[in-house]
Amino acid sequence: MTSEAQVWAHLDALAKPRRSLGRLETLAVRLATIQQRLDPVTRPRRIVLFAGDHGVVADGVSAWPSEVTGLMVGTILSGRATSSVLAAAHRCDLRLVDVGGMAPLPEPAPDFFRNGRVSSGTRSLAHGPAMTIAEFDAAWAVGAEEADHAVADGYRLLIAGEMGIGNTTPAACLTALLTGASPEGATGPGAGASEDVVAAKARIVAAATARAAAILPDDPRAAIAGVCGYEIAAMAGYFARGAELGATMLLDGYVATAGALIAERLAPGSANAMIAGHRSAEPGHEAALDALGLEPLLDWGMRLGEGTGALVALPLVDAAAALLTGVARLDELGVDRED
Amino acid sequence: MTSEAQVWAHLDALAKPRRSLGRLETLAVRLATIQQRLDPVTRPRRIVLFAGDHGVVADGVSAWPSEVTGLMVGTILSGRATSSVLAAAHRCDLRLVDVGGMAPLPEPAPDFFRNGRVSSGTRSLAHGPAMTIAEFDAAWAVGAEEADHAVADGYRLLIAGEMGIGNTTPAACLTALLTGASPEGATGPGAGASEDVVAAKARIVAAATARAAAILPDDPRAAIAGVCGYEIAAMAGYFARGAELGATMLLDGYVATAGALIAERLAPGSANAMIAGHRSAEPGHEAALDALGLEPLLDWGMRLGEGTGALVALPLVDAAAALLTGVARLDELGVDRED
Repeated sequence: MTSEAQVWAHLDALAKPRRSLGRLETLAVRLATIQQRLDPVTRPRRIVLFAGDHGVVADGVSAWPSEVTGLMVGTILSGRATSSVLAAAHRCDLRLVDVGGMAPLPEPAPDFFRNGRVSSGTRSLAHGPAMTIAEFDAAWAVGAEEADHAVADGYRLLIAGEMGIGNTTPAACLTALLTGASPEGATGPGAGASEDVVAAKARIVAAATARAAAILPDDPRAAIAGVCGYEIAAMAGYFARGAELGATMLLDGYVATAGALIAERLAPGSANAMIAGHRSAEPGHEAALDALGLEPLLDWGMRLGEGTGALVALPLVDAAAALLTGVARLDELGVDRED
Repeated sequence: MTSEAQVWAHLDALAKPRRSLGRLETLAVRLATIQQRLDPVTRPRRIVLFAGDHGVVADGVSAWPSEVTGLMVGTILSGRATSSVLAAAHRCDLRLVDVGGMAPLPEPAPDFFRNGRVSSGTRSLAHGPAMTIAEFDAAWAVGAEEADHAVADGYRLLIAGEMGIGNTTPAACLTALLTGASPEGATGPGAGASEDVVAAKARIVAAATARAAAILPDDPRAAIAGVCGYEIAAMAGYFARGAELGATMLLDGYVATAGALIAERLAPGSANAMIAGHRSAEPGHEAALDALGLEPLLDWGMRLGEGTGALVALPLVDAAAALLTGVARLDELGVDRED
């Protein structure tokens, strides 16, 4: 058992003024307690990007058409999306799993692509449940399998990212449903929607969330499935299973955190394995992070998705690990503490 | 000529929602305009740590005795100081230059150590000028030579760090002198001084700053030298010369920024080459960054020095460079912008 007090005692013995690294030290404590060791590891690390489409796009909630999901999947596979570039820059292994896209599957596909498609896009949550419980469970299982494989392959730090035009709409529903935030407060411009589109989106979010909230107490999986996305359900399964296996889960932004909220609801304790990479520009993200008890590493106004916020924050976690593992203790230098 | 508008036009053409990466994009604009290219580089990068001692420590301004400077120099040389560990984690080449330490020089010393000692510690600024103008110029030259060598060796991103027990006292004097901040507002606990020590330190800072301010208009070098430290003067020369040579200068915390204030005062325009790594927990740092027109990347309550704040922030600059150089343009995917 590695307690917070043990990690602080280790940090306070290092050859530096006590508590002089601020947030880097609280991050080190978090990382060491998640991994239950004073020498936590951040390598090798993997990001799994989950892709899916959303029937609700047809109801006018997004600045972009659903076709862009498939185009961005292709761009990720070519290594020239923002996520692929940041993953390469920070030496993070990347996989891409199509859980519910509408576009034709890539052919041929590279090794790091997986066809895990449960269905070709959700039904519109504006008109009824986005998916069945069975579809939700299938998408969750895809994500859980990804965590299983990653941990079996030696990965100890895991990131989930997503690609899915329209997916801030289910994320807003899930945030409102699972945190008690207002539907209006949970709804933002996503990938660049205009004010009129955001207003229409907020009305759809409010109606769908009210419908889901009515069944949440009796049937949480049905409530969640009704306003979910395949890539979000997969991230939830990935987070829950990764946490269960003792991996460190580094969160991206608003949509990924919606998956984390599901994980914590259906597998309580999952949030104990999580570190929040950043606070998104999406207005509902703060409520989601608060509900999980997480303080983000960066507050940089990012809102791209694809795991990019987590990837930008990733080396900060490396620095925390290095602090714990590499720095000499002051007593090794023969100095008494003066601070 | 690479203007800010050109960098924004490039970023706005990439395959991601426009302006969706917030602070990472403004950092990318800063980096590209400093380097005058749309594909800026952050490798290879170097940190030079400048060490020096301070006569004012004998007047009771620090939680630690001057002997700790030499001990930490030894720890850095052994690769087990926080700075050495973070530099290794983020693949940053490290050098250590003794500009004014009091301890015996390390023997034998590794290749990355330089004996650039101008004198064995400053005189106490509590009782008169800390150094002569000639000593100031000699320390400045040591730093400028380090920038010359680094750029000649192909380094394009440069960090300066410092090790010097007592050096937040000259940093506070310099911040008050060069920004107009009050001596009390510029004085903080440094490496863990008690309230009583901070109060005594503030009185010393106020008196020394008043003495320096009286001669600043007529003889800025004499004014600055009187409240300076050797490692701070060296950092100033390093920043000024690095900026002149077109390198990107990534700033650490309060003491390094005091060196940057000197550089900007004596070599106006130097700040145009600077990126602020973080906002220190030292209360005067904000005034110093404001005077330089710099917005820090991190606000993590760090106050260790040794370049550690800049090293923690370094991969954020890598991410900005990767964004500019690696991501596809949306028009390459055949998509019209919708945002």
